[in-house]
Amino acid sequence: MGVFGVEEASNITYLGLHSLQHRGQEGAGIVSCSDDKFYQFRARGLVGDVFGADEIGSLHGAMAIGHVRYSTTGENALKNVQPLSATYRYGQVAISHNGNIVNAKELRTQLESEGSIFSSTSDTEVILHLLARSSQKTFVNRLVEALSYLQGAYSLLVMTENKLVAVRDPHGFRPLAWGRLGGGHVLASESCALDLVGATVVREINPGEMLIVDKNGATSISPFGRQDTKSCIFEQIYFARPNTVFSGRSVYESRYQFGRTLAKECAVAADVVIPVPDSGTAAALGYAYESGLPFHQGLIRSHYVGRTFIEPSQSIRDFGVKLKLSPIRSVVEGKRVVVIDDSLVRGTTSRKIVRMLRNAGAKEVHVRIAAPPIIASCFYGIDTPEVSELIAHTMSQDEISTYIGSDTLGYLPVVSMHELLGGRSGFCDACFTGDYPVPVADVAATHQLDLFSANIEPDSSD
Amino acid sequence: MGVFGVEEASNITYLGLHSLQHRGQEGAGIVSCSDDKFYQFRARGLVGDVFGADEIGSLHGAMAIGHVRYSTTGENALKNVQPLSATYRYGQVAISHNGNIVNAKELRTQLESEGSIFSSTSDTEVILHLLARSSQKTFVNRLVEALSYLQGAYSLLVMTENKLVAVRDPHGFRPLAWGRLGGGHVLASESCALDLVGATVVREINPGEMLIVDKNGATSISPFGRQDTKSCIFEQIYFARPNTVFSGRSVYESRYQFGRTLAKECAVAADVVIPVPDSGTAAALGYAYESGLPFHQGLIRSHYVGRTFIEPSQSIRDFGVKLKLSPIRSVVEGKRVVVIDDSLVRGTTSRKIVRMLRNAGAKEVHVRIAAPPIIASCFYGIDTPEVSELIAHTMSQDEISTYIGSDTLGYLPVVSMHELLGGRSGFCDACFTGDYPVPVADVAATHQLDLFSANIEPDSSD
Amino acid sequence: MGVFGVEEASNITYLGLHSLQHRGQEGAGIVSCSDDKFYQFRARGLVGDVFGADEIGSLHGAMAIGHVRYSTTGENALKNVQPLSATYRYGQVAISHNGNIVNAKELRTQLESEGSIFSSTSDTEVILHLLARSSQKTFVNRLVEALSYLQGAYSLLVMTENKLVAVRDPHGFRPLAWGRLGGGHVLASESCALDLVGATVVREINPGEMLIVDKNGATSISPFGRQDTKSCIFEQIYFARPNTVFSGRSVYESRYQFGRTLAKECAVAADVVIPVPDSGTAAALGYAYESGLPFHQGLIRSHYVGRTFIEPSQSIRDFGVKLKLSPIRSVVEGKRVVVIDDSLVRGTTSRKIVRMLRNAGAKEVHVRIAAPPIIASCFYGIDTPEVSELIAHTMSQDEISTYIGSDTLGYLPVVSMHELLGGRSGFCDACFTGDYPVPVADVAATHQLDLFSANIEPDSSD
Amino acid sequence: MGVFGVEEASNITYLGLHSLQHRGQEGAGIVSCSDDKFYQFRARGLVGDVFGADEIGSLHGAMAIGHVRYSTTGENALKNVQPLSATYRYGQVAISHNGNIVNAKELRTQLESEGSIFSSTSDTEVILHLLARSSQKTFVNRLVEALSYLQGAYSLLVMTENKLVAVRDPHGFRPLAWGRLGGGHVLASESCALDLVGATVVREINPGEMLIVDKNGATSISPFGRQDTKSCIFEQIYFARPNTVFSGRSVYESRYQFGRTLAKECAVAADVVIPVPDSGTAAALGYAYESGLPFHQGLIRSHYVGRTFIEPSQSIRDFGVKLKLSPIRSVVEGKRVVVIDDSLVRGTTSRKIVRMLRNAGAKEVHVRIAAPPIIASCFYGIDTPEVSELIAHTMSQDEISTYIGSDTLGYLPVVSMHELLGGRSGFCDACFTGDYPVPVADVAATHQLDLFSANIEPDSSD
Repeated sequence: MGVFGVEEASNITYLGLHSLQHRGQEGAGIVSCSDDKFYQFRARGLVGDVFGADEIGSLHGAMAIGHVRYSTTGENALKNVQPLSATYRYGQVAISHNGNIVNAKELRTQLESEGSIFSSTSDTEVILHLLARSSQKTFVNRLVEALSYLQGAYSLLVMTENKLVAVRDPHGFRPLAWGRLGGGHVLASESCALDLVGATVVREINPGEMLIVDKNGATSISPFGRQDTKSCIFEQIYFARPNTVFSGRSVYESRYQFGRTLAKECAVAADVVIPVPDSGTAAALGYAYESGLPFHQGLIRSHYVGRTFIEPSQSIRDFGVKLKLSPIRSVVEGKRVVVIDDSLVRGTTSRKIVRMLRNAGAKEVHVRIAAPPIIASCFYGIDTPEVSELIAHTMSQDEISTYIGSDTLGYLPVVSMHELLGGRSGFCDACFTGDYPVPVADVAATHQLDLFSANIEPDSSD
Repeated sequence: MGVFGVEEASNITYLGLHSLQHRGQEGAGIVSCSDDKFYQFRARGLVGDVFGADEIGSLHGAMAIGHVRYSTTGENALKNVQPLSATYRYGQVAISHNGNIVNAKELRTQLESEGSIFSSTSDTEVILHLLARSSQKTFVNRLVEALSYLQGAYSLLVMTENKLVAVRDPHGFRPLAWGRLGGGHVLASESCALDLVGATVVREINPGEMLIVDKNGATSISPFGRQDTKSCIFEQIYFARPNTVFSGRSVYESRYQFGRTLAKECAVAADVVIPVPDSGTAAALGYAYESGLPFHQGLIRSHYVGRTFIEPSQSIRDFGVKLKLSPIRSVVEGKRVVVIDDSLVRGTTSRKIVRMLRNAGAKEVHVRIAAPPIIASCFYGIDTPEVSELIAHTMSQDEISTYIGSDTLGYLPVVSMHELLGGRSGFCDACFTGDYPVPVADVAATHQLDLFSANIEPDSSD
Repeated sequence: MGVFGVEEASNITYLGLHSLQHRGQEGAGIVSCSDDKFYQFRARGLVGDVFGADEIGSLHGAMAIGHVRYSTTGENALKNVQPLSATYRYGQVAISHNGNIVNAKELRTQLESEGSIFSSTSDTEVILHLLARSSQKTFVNRLVEALSYLQGAYSLLVMTENKLVAVRDPHGFRPLAWGRLGGGHVLASESCALDLVGATVVREINPGEMLIVDKNGATSISPFGRQDTKSCIFEQIYFARPNTVFSGRSVYESRYQFGRTLAKECAVAADVVIPVPDSGTAAALGYAYESGLPFHQGLIRSHYVGRTFIEPSQSIRDFGVKLKLSPIRSVVEGKRVVVIDDSLVRGTTSRKIVRMLRNAGAKEVHVRIAAPPIIASCFYGIDTPEVSELIAHTMSQDEISTYIGSDTLGYLPVVSMHELLGGRSGFCDACFTGDYPVPVADVAATHQLDLFSANIEPDSSD
Repeated sequence: MGVFGVEEASNITYLGLHSLQHRGQEGAGIVSCSDDKFYQFRARGLVGDVFGADEIGSLHGAMAIGHVRYSTTGENALKNVQPLSATYRYGQVAISHNGNIVNAKELRTQLESEGSIFSSTSDTEVILHLLARSSQKTFVNRLVEALSYLQGAYSLLVMTENKLVAVRDPHGFRPLAWGRLGGGHVLASESCALDLVGATVVREINPGEMLIVDKNGATSISPFGRQDTKSCIFEQIYFARPNTVFSGRSVYESRYQFGRTLAKECAVAADVVIPVPDSGTAAALGYAYESGLPFHQGLIRSHYVGRTFIEPSQSIRDFGVKLKLSPIRSVVEGKRVVVIDDSLVRGTTSRKIVRMLRNAGAKEVHVRIAAPPIIASCFYGIDTPEVSELIAHTMSQDEISTYIGSDTLGYLPVVSMHELLGGRSGFCDACFTGDYPVPVADVAATHQLDLFSANIEPDSSD
């Protein structure tokens, strides 16, 4: 989330981060800029807990970038909470990074071998070092050079004393939307944040595009060679908020259609369709519509239960899920229940939900997942677990159904998903297919040897 | 919430309070008892914020009572957070009170005139004083005597060193449910808390019943004269969680039926039915079912937004409601939308929601409330505002519709509500009708003069 | 500490409490009054930690009383932090109590038998109850009646909506000083607090005097029968700050003279006199002057070490005292050292200091105590330990010297102490002699039966 | 403060930091090492506030370094609290720095021009970068190379996964003492910290010495060319604790002798000598001894007043100093008072003390400073203000006396100071004389151009 040219930019950023909270709950930070001076605050925790009026009040200026952390690389430590900032020869720079740089380790080793020190374990810090090493004359050129070494997924906001630069990697793995607010500009991972702060959506930043916003307005360049677009299909399925729109496609509508198709592909005789709230609601409505079964709230979610609670030492089982979700007995008792969720990762939550529904009297429990089985880990910024923990990687569909205790289990077929999204091209679907658009293991082999040769040689004549 | 005879009673109580959090967000407290010693902790805030592992760990014993505060009388100050506890001549006593004692002020004046000092401004403290003043020989008799002076609504849990007593006032205004857990007993305002901790629901405590739980088991007495049952109809409509069951009637089911009837009573030509999440969902499903209109999620609710946030000084309007609720444009754009909520109190939130839906492109917005207009304040424990702030008290239905900006506005008729709940008798519906079962203004006039004459005279021969 | 008729009374009170911090470190509180409304804040901890600008700013009004807690009765819990306040039939009242009511337990039992409930375990709460029970027509008469039941030591400040009343018990055990500030009045346990806030000392409140300060000015009455003055001699010796003046006698000067006499009474051949800082400094200077020996800082005190620190599990011994006091080797090495302290209670600290000095190279260590041996516990407000923990109660002087490891040990003789303070009469010296002016064991036997008969009988005709 | 080879090294470090708290109150940190892993905690505030049992418990291992921050360069921000740590190509390194690197800015510019990024504004971070840039084969050689670029004052502790290196700059501006504890080693700025933890003092680290401690024991090297020793004379006068010993010279003894000489050089007819506690005590005793005047405690210091307090908006003047210091009227009333302090920097505190003494009745107030006038700022690690704020830089002695309101004012002559410390050579006395041993303005000009040429050229062939 970034803001340029709007009074109280840090407050606008803070409000936007609230609506992006689902993208990361580990930490939050904002860096603002006023009169060439940077103001910053970061801490571990949720946006609402990290920032009070004092903190927001101290983040002066009409330009700011913010971040909510969801660790895919680096430990969950204060030093890794973004935006990262540093000073280098040309001044100050702060950076918010969404994604995952697959050759970060190689770059770090290379940078260290040339004398760089690292104060975080985040992959984002390499970008700061690459920027500082560049001998290009302008900031934009330095940033282009720095980014040219990166492989992987990055949607970035980079702030200097006088500009805000938004960049999306050439494959466009992770989203980044652009809006206008008053005379200023707002950039955010999802359009829902633009809506919240009252900004008008302009469009999404294109894969490989760099948008430079300064006092002269917004300039778009595309400095990187053209590559196939590979936008993350998992954002549509699971990660983004339903009121977000990607490429003109409403996330809610996509999920509703997934539900309809699921009803056709995996029909079952039943009495009621219920969602796992709130993630499964859109798909469940689609399923109910297509199947003609009644839709009901069979599980309700508590709005007050935070992330931690204290369990008795002799614990009644499954308190965690029971505090968050409670069955409505009158809806499920004696019924054949179809329960719809948006994904099934490890299987542990589904298992608890099935048991909870049976305890509430459900006669049959049919689990339907409005997505294909997740069989591979993401290396481009979604924190999927190791493949060994992915239940669809290690078990057949029948085994999973037995494990979670459902009468039947059905998934959305991969082909149906592609069909509904208008074809496979343009999307990264590695988590469902194992086809990785950017190789991970042997990545970055080519670029490495001559890294920085351009910008270091001139230095040696200092 | 109270627990007797279960290890780690304070932890069970704490978990139950989580599921009752919707009943009060101002403060929370637990008093436990182990080996004749009371342990207590109270603070302002939500259950999850008030208690950490240290606090729960320090509340020893197999008996405990807890409370979530929602102030109807007394300021929102630490000294008013319950359970209240005190020592008196026979030992220690702690009390959790749900309801509102309408003659508390008179009793307090009377007690003060006889030399009592008050350390809180809560109406509950008078019960402690009355108990201490009683000259009856047994605790139960003292409690019966004390309660005989009270007028109004009370569901109480009273704990001494060796017993837990549950009482519901003779009219049964406020709910109180009884369950068993292992060899012990659990009491809670709503059955959802019993479900959560894995207790088996026994039944509700009857109006006027006193249940005494001690090491000899549970004994029920009905020491108060029989009076008409007047259980709160607003619990069904609004206050209770949908997975709670009152008198065999599922709250979710009641609300669904309200929605169906609403569709019949206030039909309108429209394209989509959406609920105000999460309170309007059950009724909206009933409305959609009956009307044949499609049901959709047109508004989504954020799970991360707490009670406070920091607004820019030049505020974009309505940030509060926008942080909590966001419209899904693809659902409402160009549509005639019926939006269902469970109540309309001051009209300010509805006004914001109507505007939000219109901004998201709704062509028409029809507001339907799955309850009758609220025209009178509650004096029995629900924190409805002064009548002057009740929009249905001061405006006609048309005026309200104009105020909130809706195309049409419809309420559930009072008679339909009664019909659906099986008749008017047994319920207090004062908020919808203005018929107060216990007079408020001149209440308690009879009892007052001879108050305590019985138990004070013996003292003078000490 | 209390203030009447001075703007920002709570801030003046707060500053005064800082200078009385040595009188109690367990908790602090202030209650102020503005326009008949009481504002209050109390918490456990030091004055500087308890109060921030927000707390002080919220304590409105030109009248306030404050307290620093040092528990002699009642647990160290929030509920016992003073000033206590309550409402009763005639309005609000707050009270700060310095001292110890020896018949508090009997009074409490009596009050409970008449139906009072107690919300603290502090002996001060009985005063509130007695006040509320009185049927006298004026506040002052009610207070006189309430206090007439008390036995023991009390210096009180009592605040109502329109008056501040200062009272000292008839024996005058505990001090209480009166000053003027601008057009207002300030009352404090020690004159040092008056000095700090810039008030002019008027005089001490006399034993048995009640000073009533209201908008008409200050009125003095002496409602209690005349009794022998028994002001606490331990205040002079140990408790009060050296810049406090009692009855025209500077505490610093008294201690200096104690040191001089000690040098005469317990002379020893030595090379250097050092104080235990800061309590022994005045006496050590007197000792050095009289003995002709050089005075040096042989021990220095850290200003940064708080009350708690974390010790290694394999602890180097005596970290506690070493963090607070450090020897200066160049002062004591190879020397015969006389070390002066103001008291020797359990002997544990002296033992550590002697060892510390020997480790720093002292050839001989002679301990001199500028007070007589403490052989009896205080029941009037000083927190001396049980007699069994008083080393001078259980050991002879030689045994103590052996225990603490000193070469010689000397105390100020009781007769010298009396001589220096102008005779024995007027002082309570129970801690040094065991002669208790108010009997403790069988106290209050006479008053008890007819307690409250006067004010309760009229109530029964209500 | 650093510890090697002692169990619970972080706890030992923590205790030592307590006794060095006078050296810095802005922040504190500890980095420990166990099994090649670094554990760290830093925060703003005092040692006792920063560290709790949890923090200390989480800092595992038998090696640790700690730091108390007192900012001479860099803002007072969390990012500047030391020890600083980072990873670089050879692993992890942490560093505690006492002193001030005068060419830090030039080095930073140079490093930035070669692509380094800085995450703090502390001058210490340049050392980490220089270390990372070095192409030497061993850690010690890299450290030697890095330090060879530094100009100015530094006593350093540098920790890697397997060694603790202590270094003092060639001039030896800032102190550093070495001790043994059990089989391990302890290093600290002052010997008082070694005493506290029970370590035996070995000796001070010599100017220009590097002591390498690892599992093979301690090795001393002197890799830097010999330069004149310039140890800080201000440590003796003011900064160090009186129980510290430098070069065999007790700080207490030095100050006592300064007082004696001051009495000879600036005699005045008076009745009593009093110190400004606690800093002026040693000198005041010397003054009293030499002058034959009685020494008394005329000012007492509160042990409870923290760094902040809340002043009334209509402030009684000088609350700050009055809360910390209070006059004893009986000592100064009607007397001619000589008040001794150890330094007079801006004159504001002295002015308040003189007024306080006069208000307490002093007939005459003669201020004597046991040090020469401070006429120049320190650039080597003592946080003296800008020269424009140094009263002795801008006013004559008579003008100062008038400003602070004293009857007379006397300083210790510079020559006397030198005489008492055994000559001028070996000391930096720039603050008293303006003679700076290391030029500050045009420093580091020579080294700069070829900086890193050695270690960067090989990189370009990578």
